[in-house]
Amino acid sequence: MDITHIEHIGIAVRNIEEQLPYYEDVLGLKCYNIETVEDQKVKTAFFKVGQTKIELLEPTSEDSTIAKFIERRGEGVHHIAYATKSVKAALKKADEKGLRLIDKEPRKGAEGLNIAFLHPKSTGSVLTEFCEHPEE
Amino acid sequence: MDITHIEHIGIAVRNIEEQLPYYEDVLGLKCYNIETVEDQKVKTAFFKVGQTKIELLEPTSEDSTIAKFIERRGEGVHHIAYATKSVKAALKKADEKGLRLIDKEPRKGAEGLNIAFLHPKSTGSVLTEFCEHPEE
Repeated sequence: MDITHIEHIGIAVRNIEEQLPYYEDVLGLKCYNIETVEDQKVKTAFFKVGQTKIELLEPTSEDSTIAKFIERRGEGVHHIAYATKSVKAALKKADEKGLRLIDKEPRKGAEGLNIAFLHPKSTGSVLTEFCEHPEE
Repeated sequence: MDITHIEHIGIAVRNIEEQLPYYEDVLGLKCYNIETVEDQKVKTAFFKVGQTKIELLEPTSEDSTIAKFIERRGEGVHHIAYATKSVKAALKKADEKGLRLIDKEPRKGAEGLNIAFLHPKSTGSVLTEFCEHPEE
């Protein structure tokens, strides 16, 4: 599998605005984008740290998966996303190795990336995402 | 604060050996070091992914903080570590901003790094570490 780096770390938060002072004023990271992913019922805020992004995830509805995650486990790290040259090839490999897939095919995620998730049951309880820049 | 990249992501696991096939055979990462940090009562395994390391943390005793974490929350992401030029300066800044510190001074961590932890109460429930290579 052609993993190059950690594309982002997804962190579930109740309220993005309340977290900005920590990320911007304490850590000194710059929030370069806030966008809403309608079909995921989530508002996202991005910060760049070297090769990796911090992606804050705020639920926009009580029935979003992020709202349910926070209800069950509280705020905190929600998933790790690995950058790969081909999400399709990564899924094929994971499937061949017997891992449980949440997405059987790549789909569009935040920032226009092609993405797919593996089920945490197969990954030591770490919800895991593959990401691919469509132009690469 | 002079944060350059994500130094590592710490992941609590019950048993490192059981996780190796996922990280090595599925993701294709190479475990380049396994070491025990006696005073933390933890065995660690490291994988490099671009600028960042995945650090698996296996408790070596029932009273290790990792054992307690797993008992309370299950396996999964335990902490995020940011690389900084100066842990001392980072702690000073965090303290000035009113954050709760676990370590008031830098101490030695795995791989000989100077490290310090911030309390998750101040960081949106993400246990957060600062790391500095002593030679840099």
